[in-house]
Amino acid sequence: MMTVEEDERIRNNLDTDDDIYDEDGNVRSDFLTLVVSALTERNVPFLQHNVARLHESEIGDLLESLQPEQRLSLVRLLGDDFDMTALTQVDEAIRRQIVDQMPNDQIAAAIGELDSDDAVYILEDLDQVDRDEILSQLPFTERVRLRRALDYPESSAGRRMQTEFVAVPPFWTVGQTIDYMRDEEDLPESFSQLFVIDPTFKLLGGVDLDRILRAKRHEKIETIMRETSHPIPAEMDQEEAAQLFEQYDLLSAAVVDDNDRLVGVLTIDDVVDVIHEEADEDIKRLGGVGDEELSDNVTSTVRSRFVWLFINLLTAILSSSIISVFDGSIEKMIALAVLMPIVASMGGNAGTQTMTVTVRALATGDLDIHNAWRVINKETCVGFLNGILFAIIMGAIATFWFHDSQLGIVIGAAMIINMVAAALGGILLPLALDRMGADPAIASSAFVTTVTDCTGYFAFLGIATWWFAIH
Amino acid sequence: MMTVEEDERIRNNLDTDDDIYDEDGNVRSDFLTLVVSALTERNVPFLQHNVARLHESEIGDLLESLQPEQRLSLVRLLGDDFDMTALTQVDEAIRRQIVDQMPNDQIAAAIGELDSDDAVYILEDLDQVDRDEILSQLPFTERVRLRRALDYPESSAGRRMQTEFVAVPPFWTVGQTIDYMRDEEDLPESFSQLFVIDPTFKLLGGVDLDRILRAKRHEKIETIMRETSHPIPAEMDQEEAAQLFEQYDLLSAAVVDDNDRLVGVLTIDDVVDVIHEEADEDIKRLGGVGDEELSDNVTSTVRSRFVWLFINLLTAILSSSIISVFDGSIEKMIALAVLMPIVASMGGNAGTQTMTVTVRALATGDLDIHNAWRVINKETCVGFLNGILFAIIMGAIATFWFHDSQLGIVIGAAMIINMVAAALGGILLPLALDRMGADPAIASSAFVTTVTDCTGYFAFLGIATWWFAIH
Repeated sequence: MMTVEEDERIRNNLDTDDDIYDEDGNVRSDFLTLVVSALTERNVPFLQHNVARLHESEIGDLLESLQPEQRLSLVRLLGDDFDMTALTQVDEAIRRQIVDQMPNDQIAAAIGELDSDDAVYILEDLDQVDRDEILSQLPFTERVRLRRALDYPESSAGRRMQTEFVAVPPFWTVGQTIDYMRDEEDLPESFSQLFVIDPTFKLLGGVDLDRILRAKRHEKIETIMRETSHPIPAEMDQEEAAQLFEQYDLLSAAVVDDNDRLVGVLTIDDVVDVIHEEADEDIKRLGGVGDEELSDNVTSTVRSRFVWLFINLLTAILSSSIISVFDGSIEKMIALAVLMPIVASMGGNAGTQTMTVTVRALATGDLDIHNAWRVINKETCVGFLNGILFAIIMGAIATFWFHDSQLGIVIGAAMIINMVAAALGGILLPLALDRMGADPAIASSAFVTTVTDCTGYFAFLGIATWWFAIH
Repeated sequence: MMTVEEDERIRNNLDTDDDIYDEDGNVRSDFLTLVVSALTERNVPFLQHNVARLHESEIGDLLESLQPEQRLSLVRLLGDDFDMTALTQVDEAIRRQIVDQMPNDQIAAAIGELDSDDAVYILEDLDQVDRDEILSQLPFTERVRLRRALDYPESSAGRRMQTEFVAVPPFWTVGQTIDYMRDEEDLPESFSQLFVIDPTFKLLGGVDLDRILRAKRHEKIETIMRETSHPIPAEMDQEEAAQLFEQYDLLSAAVVDDNDRLVGVLTIDDVVDVIHEEADEDIKRLGGVGDEELSDNVTSTVRSRFVWLFINLLTAILSSSIISVFDGSIEKMIALAVLMPIVASMGGNAGTQTMTVTVRALATGDLDIHNAWRVINKETCVGFLNGILFAIIMGAIATFWFHDSQLGIVIGAAMIINMVAAALGGILLPLALDRMGADPAIASSAFVTTVTDCTGYFAFLGIATWWFAIH
């Protein structure tokens, strides 16, 4: 048990130093140790004083640094002082683990305090039964709002929007509007624009707050509002919505239903999360790890990676079967077995380079029908030129290594062919997948290396077989 | 030449349909055709009417869809009506191409109209001589501001900040502040918070606009301001600044110099660009394509990719030399040559999976010293379990393929070893690179596949040699 003085000292110590991170951006080890021992000793005052006061994202990072059981005990010990928004800042696996262990009425009480977008974020992971039980314990308006947001498809703008917003009629003056905001208690926690609506909630326009502050009190809202040129349909995919935000540098945007009625507001901080998720997804798909997260357990990780590895096994067997066609040539000349992986590997890497650029350019919209031919052309040239360079280099190396200049010529020719094949595969396969409506990030790398492996083995062993047969 | 009626029709037609994009998000082909023919016919009214009115990002997309000479002719024909901010929306290569062809006085005139962050974005790409000439043509205050921003290191917060901001003293009332904003002409184009400073420009705090609107007119600014808990030092790397924005859901943040004096403001829209750039960088580095952009020309693309491919050639030769050690065994049993790429390829893919997760987790801060052991442990288990699964599958396939159950046992054993090596290499190499202060994304994939290729060949051929020697 800590003495009161010790505890006091630590408290003061932590108070003066506000930052829970070390210089590498990790949670400070000494802070973590203190939290862990407070958990073991069930020292609730310490936790209330030093953890509950943290920013939601700091609590999130702290949760990620703790062991699973410690996370639960932190949430239990803090009770009502635990800030549920912290759960929006952690991996899905950790969120599920914690929420599954919390009693539904505690979740309901906590959810009632959250902004609707955070509430939806937590509710959407729960199974139907728990979700319904929690919703039934919420006040009517709250429940209707959340249900409506949850009715929109997963990953849609409607799921990410906040249903709290400030809306005023067009005939109000600036003065009236400011007075309303001064007196109204029930405003969203923070907002950067007002919306202008008609009596049926139809969206007429928006006014940024700086515009209000610069206008005279007697000016009418309708004279200073601007048409919202980019209202976001609630059904729109969040990725598309994020692209609109980026393109037009929006801070917040109105979300409207099928009848153009204002149902919520999407804010840039949610969009930043979406941008992150989407980049993450692209990186992971290119690396063949689907939607896996760091905190997933061993079983689910094995399962999710197995599929990708199994596809790779099939493609590897396919390229090996090409090798087996030429087993006679290899038997006569073992050097072919030694050199063939080099041709395949160079093609694989060159193909991955082209594919990475293509997939990324497709995702950001930089590559489209207007410049596709130009890019295909460029990539083929690049592949051909690098093919020639590496044909010369590798040809020379093979000649010296095996004292056989003919082998050098053969590997050089195969290198050029495979580098051009790599360029074409690297750009055409993602383009084709994209055209077919598939995500080019997800399957491209398996397909591209299949092309380069098969072409590499076939070109090298085939040319060798033919060349040494006629010479 | 178009008739007046035709021209009129097109104009109206385009006016009614506001969207220049087709449903795939590409610039509409018919719009592009019209622009191109207007360029050929030097139809300036058409361009002024239909292009100059577009949003900067739309003009940017249009520029990217045009041929290089068409881009220049668009900029020339539009003259002063060309919105220079569009240049902040295109690839660096395209920006350089256009700016290099524009006379310096035209650039200077245009730069004077821009927000400082956009101006810096364009100026930083120019060479010293042009930059100085352009700066010398700007008004004094403008010049000093831009020079100061340009003095900060590349990719720092100081380079990305906007030097226009609204700052008020703490003793002003809300009423005074609102009146000041109503009367002051020279306010930034849009802003979401005010800063509070003392007479020496030392930062005291910030007030969000919604807070001002909710306060009574007589309230003092100092009573409603909040301490800016996260002022950003101008020297801070933009990536680090972006992480602060994300972590604390900021919309804008004060940028301060070494003496805590307010020098600018960093806004979320710039941060969104940074987040994109950084994700882009990670994806491209993992794919071995450095800082290449889609619009780079053939020569620079060949050059930038050559380095990576050359490194890969060396590592491929290294693994091939392992094969050559076992040429005697391959000579006796050609099946080894056929099967060995499968072991290497499976290891390479498993290693890439682990590496992708690790590199991404390091970039987002999810992986740190507190959970590194846990993750290493998990990855090793995953590698071992998938190793066993694929040992069984591939062992069975090899047994049937070559009618040799001993070959099945050998490849199974090699598979397990290589999958575990892949897991260890996939996590330990990025961690080691990160610890040494290197970017784990940049070199990991070359190193990881070297490990899995070498281990794969050595384990498979080594076990085979030993096994068939004793049986």
